[in-house]
Amino acid sequence: MRERDVIQFLSARLPIGDDCAVIPLKKTHLLLTTDMLHRQTDFPEGMTPYTMGWRAVAVSLSDIAAMGGKPLGVVIALGAPQFEQKFLEEFLDGALACCTACQTKLVGGDTDRHSELTVVTTALGEAQKPVWRGGARVEDLVCVTGDLGRTAAALRLLKERDFDRANELLRFLPRLREGQALAHLASSMIDISDGLARSLYLLSEASHVGFRIDAAAIPFALEVEELARDQDELFEMGLFFGEDFELLFTLPQEELFEARRACEFTVIGRVVPEHEGITMQLGPERIPLPDRGYEH
Amino acid sequence: MRERDVIQFLSARLPIGDDCAVIPLKKTHLLLTTDMLHRQTDFPEGMTPYTMGWRAVAVSLSDIAAMGGKPLGVVIALGAPQFEQKFLEEFLDGALACCTACQTKLVGGDTDRHSELTVVTTALGEAQKPVWRGGARVEDLVCVTGDLGRTAAALRLLKERDFDRANELLRFLPRLREGQALAHLASSMIDISDGLARSLYLLSEASHVGFRIDAAAIPFALEVEELARDQDELFEMGLFFGEDFELLFTLPQEELFEARRACEFTVIGRVVPEHEGITMQLGPERIPLPDRGYEH
Repeated sequence: MRERDVIQFLSARLPIGDDCAVIPLKKTHLLLTTDMLHRQTDFPEGMTPYTMGWRAVAVSLSDIAAMGGKPLGVVIALGAPQFEQKFLEEFLDGALACCTACQTKLVGGDTDRHSELTVVTTALGEAQKPVWRGGARVEDLVCVTGDLGRTAAALRLLKERDFDRANELLRFLPRLREGQALAHLASSMIDISDGLARSLYLLSEASHVGFRIDAAAIPFALEVEELARDQDELFEMGLFFGEDFELLFTLPQEELFEARRACEFTVIGRVVPEHEGITMQLGPERIPLPDRGYEH
Repeated sequence: MRERDVIQFLSARLPIGDDCAVIPLKKTHLLLTTDMLHRQTDFPEGMTPYTMGWRAVAVSLSDIAAMGGKPLGVVIALGAPQFEQKFLEEFLDGALACCTACQTKLVGGDTDRHSELTVVTTALGEAQKPVWRGGARVEDLVCVTGDLGRTAAALRLLKERDFDRANELLRFLPRLREGQALAHLASSMIDISDGLARSLYLLSEASHVGFRIDAAAIPFALEVEELARDQDELFEMGLFFGEDFELLFTLPQEELFEARRACEFTVIGRVVPEHEGITMQLGPERIPLPDRGYEH
């Protein structure tokens, strides 16, 4: 089974399908999300232990951000062939630094001897009013925080052995402040962990809407614009590669003014009826945006 | 570094040292615990996918039980070389059955292609009054729920290819009901995941006390008594092997009557001053109980 089929199979039996599990408790909502990262696919050569620790935490906190939540704590299960004190120290420094930057704490974990370096981070959060994937309405604006393609650019820089710049790009700050500021304004929200295109399809499936995106409005990271040799590559890195962890959200037009005061973001399109599908305006042409992206 | 050194190193920098992380929220306490299991050390040949799913959930819920908590939900990160529908179905059936038996829900997760079958389960729970490892007082009674050595017996049965009996033994029911019933009575509590001996040492370190255990009072599982060839082997399987997931707790003597009404357990000794160490009365002799057990 491919990962997408696995998820479909699991979705039929489990209440999954958003960035976090949502558990109501005492007039609020607890948010719980878990992510597995491992050497072969998530920790390429040249990524420092500090960056690994940072990123392991950041990936899960990004899911809390995507629900408009506030983090309450993080636990990490760490498996490794051996535990060297230097590695462990740097990894922990990175994980703790990310927690501090996000005003939360690493509260526990588990360690285990494992054939491959494997890190599973679970973040717990809270949201008075969680923002779901399923709330987008026709005529809402489509918006993204930050800019796209940073991880794609970072992996390219790693290959070119520009390790410092690459690691800096990889240590993204989860958009918790933005997520919380938008929680009462956005109609739907998701983080762009699978690429903009795939994330639009996930919002579309949950909200039963289509999207019309304006290619000229999409904010690409400077590094992507510098590294991409042509437009195709720009789109590949910025729209399909994924692992960006910016927030993609929809906004009722009447909330635009207040949202602008709440945080920075870019309007990249608008919501259209479902039967129009997901298209991108590219110069004079309107092309369908293919449903593909990074499969984790 | 050995696992014990790793934990010591981490303890110096993180607020760890109990069965769960405890996060205060709105006049209650959230409990969060994560456990990594993987093919090489936790899923021996002959363990069915159903038992794996059950056990992955049960191990984490046992930590919630050990704090006197009520489970609120479980998430699972599952990595595997490939996902076959039959395996996934049976694994999920087992995980869901354990959740149902424990009156909680599997609320989400993550899947990932991984070189080795790896399962990380995180359980979220709640306790008005968590029971810590550090509350044992001199003269308290030392007690355990259930009987000891089931996993050791099960692994022996697996080797003897008595798969049905082995799998049944491996699907233990986390002691949530007992943990909650004892939460207002016990002075300290832990689950016996590392073996009775090691768990006594962990309680001892946290509570700064010693223990005097009566070997004749220790409840060994029938299967262990059947399989062990002599007393040494009985002790090896029942005191040191671990992975038992019974609750070990201390109880002020004046709470004994009420505790007896709350749930079933066996009194196996009493708390003594720290300088007396941890000893076991064995016939006419009082021998020191060595500090060794299963290292995960």
